[in-house]
Amino acid sequence: MNPAPLSGLYAPSLSLLTDLYQVTMAYGYWRQGLQDREAVFHLYFRKAPFAGGYAVAAGLAYAVDFLQNLRFSDDDLSYLGSLPGAKGVPLFPQEFLEYLRNLKFTCDVDAIAEGTVVFGNEPLVRVQGPLLQAQLVETALLTLVNFQTLVATKAARIREAAGPDTVLEFGLRRAQGPDGGLSASRAAYLGGVDATSNVLAGQRFGIPVKGTHAHSWVMAFEDEPTAFAAYAQAFPDDSVFLVDTYDTLDGVRHAIKVARDMRARGHELGGIRLDSGDLAYLSREARALLNEAGFEKVRIVASNDLEENLITSLKQQGAQIDTWGIGTQLVTAYDQPALGGVYKLAALRKPDDSGWDFTIKLSEQLAKTSIPGILQVRRYETEKGQPRADMLYNVAEPLPAALTLIDPLDATRRRPVRPDAPYRELLAPIFRRGELVHALPSLAESRAHAQREVQSLDPSIRRFLNPHVYPVGLEESLHTFRTNLILEKRPQRPA
Amino acid sequence: MNPAPLSGLYAPSLSLLTDLYQVTMAYGYWRQGLQDREAVFHLYFRKAPFAGGYAVAAGLAYAVDFLQNLRFSDDDLSYLGSLPGAKGVPLFPQEFLEYLRNLKFTCDVDAIAEGTVVFGNEPLVRVQGPLLQAQLVETALLTLVNFQTLVATKAARIREAAGPDTVLEFGLRRAQGPDGGLSASRAAYLGGVDATSNVLAGQRFGIPVKGTHAHSWVMAFEDEPTAFAAYAQAFPDDSVFLVDTYDTLDGVRHAIKVARDMRARGHELGGIRLDSGDLAYLSREARALLNEAGFEKVRIVASNDLEENLITSLKQQGAQIDTWGIGTQLVTAYDQPALGGVYKLAALRKPDDSGWDFTIKLSEQLAKTSIPGILQVRRYETEKGQPRADMLYNVAEPLPAALTLIDPLDATRRRPVRPDAPYRELLAPIFRRGELVHALPSLAESRAHAQREVQSLDPSIRRFLNPHVYPVGLEESLHTFRTNLILEKRPQRPA
Repeated sequence: MNPAPLSGLYAPSLSLLTDLYQVTMAYGYWRQGLQDREAVFHLYFRKAPFAGGYAVAAGLAYAVDFLQNLRFSDDDLSYLGSLPGAKGVPLFPQEFLEYLRNLKFTCDVDAIAEGTVVFGNEPLVRVQGPLLQAQLVETALLTLVNFQTLVATKAARIREAAGPDTVLEFGLRRAQGPDGGLSASRAAYLGGVDATSNVLAGQRFGIPVKGTHAHSWVMAFEDEPTAFAAYAQAFPDDSVFLVDTYDTLDGVRHAIKVARDMRARGHELGGIRLDSGDLAYLSREARALLNEAGFEKVRIVASNDLEENLITSLKQQGAQIDTWGIGTQLVTAYDQPALGGVYKLAALRKPDDSGWDFTIKLSEQLAKTSIPGILQVRRYETEKGQPRADMLYNVAEPLPAALTLIDPLDATRRRPVRPDAPYRELLAPIFRRGELVHALPSLAESRAHAQREVQSLDPSIRRFLNPHVYPVGLEESLHTFRTNLILEKRPQRPA
Repeated sequence: MNPAPLSGLYAPSLSLLTDLYQVTMAYGYWRQGLQDREAVFHLYFRKAPFAGGYAVAAGLAYAVDFLQNLRFSDDDLSYLGSLPGAKGVPLFPQEFLEYLRNLKFTCDVDAIAEGTVVFGNEPLVRVQGPLLQAQLVETALLTLVNFQTLVATKAARIREAAGPDTVLEFGLRRAQGPDGGLSASRAAYLGGVDATSNVLAGQRFGIPVKGTHAHSWVMAFEDEPTAFAAYAQAFPDDSVFLVDTYDTLDGVRHAIKVARDMRARGHELGGIRLDSGDLAYLSREARALLNEAGFEKVRIVASNDLEENLITSLKQQGAQIDTWGIGTQLVTAYDQPALGGVYKLAALRKPDDSGWDFTIKLSEQLAKTSIPGILQVRRYETEKGQPRADMLYNVAEPLPAALTLIDPLDATRRRPVRPDAPYRELLAPIFRRGELVHALPSLAESRAHAQREVQSLDPSIRRFLNPHVYPVGLEESLHTFRTNLILEKRPQRPA
């Protein structure tokens, strides 16, 4: 089961899910007769989040869904028509609204598959087509891809820390509104968690759902053993008892007492959950109590603001935790709650159709200067499929026979490419002239892909503290072209 | 215009927007015959976000909408029926699903109006009614109220820093999915921003929408003056030029050149926007260039990861900025991306209907121990309406004649209440037996209320750094009751 993530979830069209300036620019292009000038935009981030060494691409399924359903409804148009400009004139004239009414998405879109590991400056999505359309979709694509990629990456890091343990996501209550939670659950699953507490995410995306009970369950009964026994009646083979409502180790003892009664009736307690206190100490004590009582198979679930660094630390302390419940830190990507993805114009067909003008956005910081061209990402790998280096190059220009990668931030860092080095091209065709030409994998397939991708990275790139920087270079002729374009565009002020 | 925030936005029911454990507990209660036992839950946070002195309550309109539409659809029930338990038995039996099919929300709900300033431990929402129902709505209420309150509070702080300047929210591209952005825009407006870039939020909530153009607009033309002139053709009286695509001060000069041409044709440039670099320096230089050229009224808009502390610093540096564009930092509440709101059981009707059992959740930390009772928040104010202190008390018990407030974290901090002190009660009836009994104010009214509320606070409570702690106390008899309950529930271990 892998329904389209947006279709049917939102009742109205999502065409207004955009910044106003996309619509004002659309009008401006239309007025100038530039609406159909062919343009190329790249969606990319500059730096992997969480001071990490990589990111996990995600959000493409949402983007596809959004683009397939892009059209302006009567309501959308009547709202746009109602916007006032200065001097009482409507902001948009009726003829332009009619143009929007008939607008169909006809761009080519190439993108990197969900679950693929990606690095700074690499286009995750490339949109090529009529300038007005390619610009118009900027905000929605960023919203959909930025957040999915952010949370999938966080989930991959948590998965890395948890190793083979089970990881549950249950952040809905701290998420950013209904589908802040829904899309977080999807991205977390894609990035590697095993299940979610979010029932709607389970229904829509086919993610396994899991849950225990709240403190209030215990408080609703006369005492803790009574509460546990009542829960076990309802779920004789699916019970995990939350043991810290009053006192954690007393709670464990109560759980053991009830587990004995369950066993006498042919059932086994599934687990206990610790939600506060010193999880290293309490989990060891709980494990000892459970084992002593003959409950070696009762799992210990832990939660309480956990993230990858805490999990690592708890494991180093010998915590006896089998299942990690992760909420706030995962669904809000707490330590970096936004991925700074951008969407930049990189090429425009010349007015006389004689080729391309490649465009650049300058910045005082070289890291923020955009990369011109129609870019593809080529990933060189070892024979065993371990990524070695990525090359960005301009598909609109012929590639030289001898290839050299140049670090975009330090032109003295160069690496020649062996002529026989195996590689794959990461951007694949998704839309051609507005038609979907790609069969999207299921969410489970994307998740499996993500796990293989992350595992294929050298551990030095996966580590959390000061990871090794994976080499991403500009192909030499692209580097030279870009450098010249910067020098041409930047005013030369005397020192 | 103030449409219900959720109705019609999501096509299906939102009843599954919950943690699985709410449904497993519902089944457990139903199995025990406890589904109709009357219960009282409070939704509250423990500490104001951003190390601040207050929060701005928000999200009630969403919560009302959610509760009014709470019912399980056939699809919802068939999904729940499909969930597997251990040993191949369905997790939920068919009779229980039939019970859910007929479930109607019949609780009483009391809540603090959106826009009201609130403090740690104060119930923003109190739900009283059948245990199963009151528990079931926990997750959705938390999701809706936590995030709205968080962002409204952030917006109020930014409004405080910006003073009378215009503040625009344009964070959609960095928000947490489609309605992460949509609900952020709503909460930001409620908390005090003046407009949003998010067109869908404009349409749904009647928030003014604003926008300029992107760097790509400039890059799509031969040079910057041509790009500005083309934009001015489309919006002769509504243009704000983004001037930093290549070089900011050259951009300002180009804007002035085009503004002269506009003036010659009877139009005035609205503003320029700075999006990078040293905003203090560049805004002063830009202001000087504009004024020299006779464009004293052209506004200077600034953006680039701004938040309340940066705005304060820029103002101290004499920045010449009239309009602040705030994105990522506002919509993700970047420096604290989650409000730790919780939902705790506080009272249960005794089985023999002879009164209430008041319940408590213990914790190693006193700050995390819940407050038993059926709570109301009484705010004592000066004659001029300035809040002086808040008192939490149990409406199920008679109030003593002489009132004393006791700090919940330090019982030695006490303050007697003057018998004639004016006050208001903050929690107002919203639902009675599941029927909405409250006319919700419009979003604009809630926004105006928020501005009055924040302004009514002493500046020492509003300041960002080490704000004065506003006194919130437990009424003495509630304090005594709670202390005794803690002593009773906590195991007494020998030292």
